[in-house]
Amino acid sequence: MTDGLFIAFEGGDGAGKSTQVALLRDAFEAAGRTVLVTRQPGGTPLGREIRDLVLHGDHVSPRAEALLFAADKAHHVEQVIAPALAAGDVVLTDRYTDSSVAYQGAGRDLGAQEIHDLNMWAVDDLVPDLTVVVDVSAQEGRRRRGEVHDRLESEQDDFHEAIRAHYLAMAQGNPQRYLVVDGTLPPEDVHEAVVQRLRSMGALP
Amino acid sequence: MTDGLFIAFEGGDGAGKSTQVALLRDAFEAAGRTVLVTRQPGGTPLGREIRDLVLHGDHVSPRAEALLFAADKAHHVEQVIAPALAAGDVVLTDRYTDSSVAYQGAGRDLGAQEIHDLNMWAVDDLVPDLTVVVDVSAQEGRRRRGEVHDRLESEQDDFHEAIRAHYLAMAQGNPQRYLVVDGTLPPEDVHEAVVQRLRSMGALP
Repeated sequence: MTDGLFIAFEGGDGAGKSTQVALLRDAFEAAGRTVLVTRQPGGTPLGREIRDLVLHGDHVSPRAEALLFAADKAHHVEQVIAPALAAGDVVLTDRYTDSSVAYQGAGRDLGAQEIHDLNMWAVDDLVPDLTVVVDVSAQEGRRRRGEVHDRLESEQDDFHEAIRAHYLAMAQGNPQRYLVVDGTLPPEDVHEAVVQRLRSMGALP
Repeated sequence: MTDGLFIAFEGGDGAGKSTQVALLRDAFEAAGRTVLVTRQPGGTPLGREIRDLVLHGDHVSPRAEALLFAADKAHHVEQVIAPALAAGDVVLTDRYTDSSVAYQGAGRDLGAQEIHDLNMWAVDDLVPDLTVVVDVSAQEGRRRRGEVHDRLESEQDDFHEAIRAHYLAMAQGNPQRYLVVDGTLPPEDVHEAVVQRLRSMGALP
């Protein structure tokens, strides 16, 4: 049996993660691998109920929000990701634990380290074989999301730059497990950079 | 302003916790204190939605379940308990973090220590001034819950004795913050033991 392979895509909204997930799925399927594409939050029915609870309910305290997103991850890993990896499949996820660390850490209600520790407990220390950070500036991300110019713009840009800084710091701290790609390059070029890295790992022919 | 006072009642189902909560509320109100009576899980609207998600949904993974109950606690403390204590009120809760440690620890999917650590993070280290463990044997608890004799009985008794052992171990480890009372005594006698302890703490006249 082939070993399972677990790859996460991280980055701000509008960075082009879903395009890259689709291109990489095609590459692995062309190489004869079974691929599971999934996402966080909301990768299971329970996870979607949790996400709805957080996003559409009344005010949720910062710790409760962090715990609810961590519960979504715990269930997603146990029910979906771990079984697929055990079966030898390739699992591609659009966001994983680093998104929680980056977004909640940038939100400043809680520290990035405690969010990291909480999430590692939730996923029982399952870390991806490779995390691809699709990197774009806050300004470029906003342009891609089609957001209009308004008075909150610079504040929002600061928030998105803080998220970006968290992603880049995590990648810098562990270059063996991360690949940072420039999300402003053409999608085919970004994909090629990901494929090159996976070839160097022996994961693609 | 009077200082807030936080008292938790713990023990198995059928131990008589809710009777004791009601008697103690009356005692504090007779002493002129404002009393908030609450419960876990489900002490807030969000908490009730979380509880419904855990109890009425499909299978929930052990870590996700622990995280969901912890999210209920985090929100309950931030929205209900902490504001009441800040206002100088007496808060009486029917179950708190020790129930999670005892029940989930006895379930053996996860360790009692990690459940404890998770819950302490959720409640931002808010511990009760006093935790009253209303202690009854597994056999007595079953009799009070009106459960019929069946083939699972001894297995269930083992589970309830494991829960009880967790409560008693926590109390033994920190006698200043715990009072263990014999739940088979008449309710008035149990109440009197609680009142005596609170008098010795200067919390009741």
